[in-house]
Amino acid sequence: MFESYLNNVRNKRPVVHCITNYVTANDCANVLLALNASPIMADAPEEADEITGIAAGLCINLGTLSKDRADAMLKAGKKANAMGIPVVLDPVGVAASGFRIKIASKLLNEVHFTLIRGNVSEIRTLAGESDLKEGIDVIDALGCDIDETINLAEVFAKKTGAVIVLSGKTDIVTDGKKTFCINNGHPDMARVTGTGCMLSSVITAFLAANTAGVTAGAAAVCAYGLAGEMARVRLSSKDGNATYRNYIIDAVYNLTEDDIKEGAKYEMR
Amino acid sequence: MFESYLNNVRNKRPVVHCITNYVTANDCANVLLALNASPIMADAPEEADEITGIAAGLCINLGTLSKDRADAMLKAGKKANAMGIPVVLDPVGVAASGFRIKIASKLLNEVHFTLIRGNVSEIRTLAGESDLKEGIDVIDALGCDIDETINLAEVFAKKTGAVIVLSGKTDIVTDGKKTFCINNGHPDMARVTGTGCMLSSVITAFLAANTAGVTAGAAAVCAYGLAGEMARVRLSSKDGNATYRNYIIDAVYNLTEDDIKEGAKYEMR
Amino acid sequence: MFESYLNNVRNKRPVVHCITNYVTANDCANVLLALNASPIMADAPEEADEITGIAAGLCINLGTLSKDRADAMLKAGKKANAMGIPVVLDPVGVAASGFRIKIASKLLNEVHFTLIRGNVSEIRTLAGESDLKEGIDVIDALGCDIDETINLAEVFAKKTGAVIVLSGKTDIVTDGKKTFCINNGHPDMARVTGTGCMLSSVITAFLAANTAGVTAGAAAVCAYGLAGEMARVRLSSKDGNATYRNYIIDAVYNLTEDDIKEGAKYEMR
Repeated sequence: MFESYLNNVRNKRPVVHCITNYVTANDCANVLLALNASPIMADAPEEADEITGIAAGLCINLGTLSKDRADAMLKAGKKANAMGIPVVLDPVGVAASGFRIKIASKLLNEVHFTLIRGNVSEIRTLAGESDLKEGIDVIDALGCDIDETINLAEVFAKKTGAVIVLSGKTDIVTDGKKTFCINNGHPDMARVTGTGCMLSSVITAFLAANTAGVTAGAAAVCAYGLAGEMARVRLSSKDGNATYRNYIIDAVYNLTEDDIKEGAKYEMR
Repeated sequence: MFESYLNNVRNKRPVVHCITNYVTANDCANVLLALNASPIMADAPEEADEITGIAAGLCINLGTLSKDRADAMLKAGKKANAMGIPVVLDPVGVAASGFRIKIASKLLNEVHFTLIRGNVSEIRTLAGESDLKEGIDVIDALGCDIDETINLAEVFAKKTGAVIVLSGKTDIVTDGKKTFCINNGHPDMARVTGTGCMLSSVITAFLAANTAGVTAGAAAVCAYGLAGEMARVRLSSKDGNATYRNYIIDAVYNLTEDDIKEGAKYEMR
Repeated sequence: MFESYLNNVRNKRPVVHCITNYVTANDCANVLLALNASPIMADAPEEADEITGIAAGLCINLGTLSKDRADAMLKAGKKANAMGIPVVLDPVGVAASGFRIKIASKLLNEVHFTLIRGNVSEIRTLAGESDLKEGIDVIDALGCDIDETINLAEVFAKKTGAVIVLSGKTDIVTDGKKTFCINNGHPDMARVTGTGCMLSSVITAFLAANTAGVTAGAAAVCAYGLAGEMARVRLSSKDGNATYRNYIIDAVYNLTEDDIKEGAKYEMR
């Protein structure tokens, strides 16, 4: 069911505007190019909305947040809403500071997000259910069960009108009505910085090139997770997370519809 | 004819000051180190001219432009002019926003550039011939023929007094009198973020270590394109743009005078 | 003697807050993940101390310094001191500008550093013994002998109360009383941008997961240098500094206590 979504990205080459952190911006640009999409990374408030104006999708990522970048996010987000193009929010480490929570709230109030992707702690924080303070990459220690997690995502999807992608051992993708549970990916992806950021970029490209919605988001999660699995298989005993990073992007580059047809592991609830 | 230029870089180890975007700064530093040059990446207005003061070349790149970085560019550019060291401008995505056009114009008015490198859309925008709005990596869709492109570059070179490097299927390098058409490189380089930025850094090192001028620029374009070809040959069927990125830098690291003697593909007009 | 230090990092997974330059931030995050530590890269003054509040160690790196980032460093440094967690200073290129010297002095006055890591020119500048102006990566041209270097480090350690790590052909690690001379590492590491920054991140993780002190610092220097050696062995004739970068991080990922037991090369003075 997801196969055509990937090829739509490759064929339409959507321009994706990323306002993102400087830690993983290079990886986000390369993973978009791997999809044959066209990245523009730009974060100055002076040009943010104009750049969004030539894009087919906008990806907002809260990593290494700054006051200026937050201004750019607001301007770009409003422009994207006015244009009717998809906007994705990746609330990186939002639980880690009041500053991030404040900016995230402002964004949620003033911008309508097509999709929000985060881990359990990030989504809980946005949903106001938690003031957990955790490391950005400490994501699986919460021990909440799958039904609880699905419920969290579905309730927050209904509240925000956004598709929620909740990344974890099983990835949840839901619009509050239709819910996908996806079991692609590999645990070692958590040992590579930026795998979440890259996924959010990939999702934005999928939404930009397809009819926006929960299935496009699920297709992106599936495709990227599968790339992570295929990359993992290539690793030799001396390879580690740096080579894994490269192979994940390489796998996105080479991913085919047939790979997805054979490798997608999901169920709908 | 280009062979000695590479070895001059390797032997003289010029310090190159880069005021550049955060997306590809790491790649620019590594490609300069691959040449045995010595990169300094610094973009604070408070220190920009002082850093330039210890450099042999300055590379100004408009990607992820900000107000502060623009201030630093102006200060550093003027200092470089006062010192008489080469200054290179890479007007990344200048067609994408009024902010970038404004800063670029200011830079062109207040700093004399030794060399300006861009794609057709960027150079057209600087030359005031276009208000095209395109993605930063959408560079070859313009369908202008080679003679038109050469004319664009030559006219702009005469107007600015800078060597113009116009990157495209065929790369044009001209000072308005002498024009090189270079056919090194590989189309897949466009699928790697930062290949343009890296080239501008490489060019700056070549200008810094050689008598500044059109031939040093052409030698740099040739050398870097050749590295892109040699890297492309190494790729296996599972490799993609991430591994290609690494291999391009690796190829610059290993590039020899003999490689250039055998592999350079250019003609002069 | 160093073996248990590595496993303490892998088992305790310390959260390390890095306020660092955008050139090598990705590599610093990945090398921390390679150790199984948990990186948080954040540099906004608005959240710096709060982020430090959830960390077990703080790494301050002066590369691509800016006014805002300097504010964040001061706030985070004071918070770390109040919490009693280790703080590491990497004075990247401090000799290159008055701005960096001014910020570094302010930091040294207002924050107590557990450890300071730099090359001879950087440490000399901090110690007020030099106003050398050199490229950031020109580090071994000073021709000072090993006894002079040890003396520089020991005197500065006593003055600051910090462990001093002086990176060079032989790495010196000293608290002014106990001094390690470490001969791990490979000269080609100087051809990879960020090897120094990564080392400072690794050191912070080691200090955070072990009883802070000179031996933990020495263990980190040894482990990272050894990873550099093991990575160097993997390189084929077509590989260069980009692949070397990846393999260094991969080697940190795979490094074992046995590797350290067999490969550590140091003596104590």
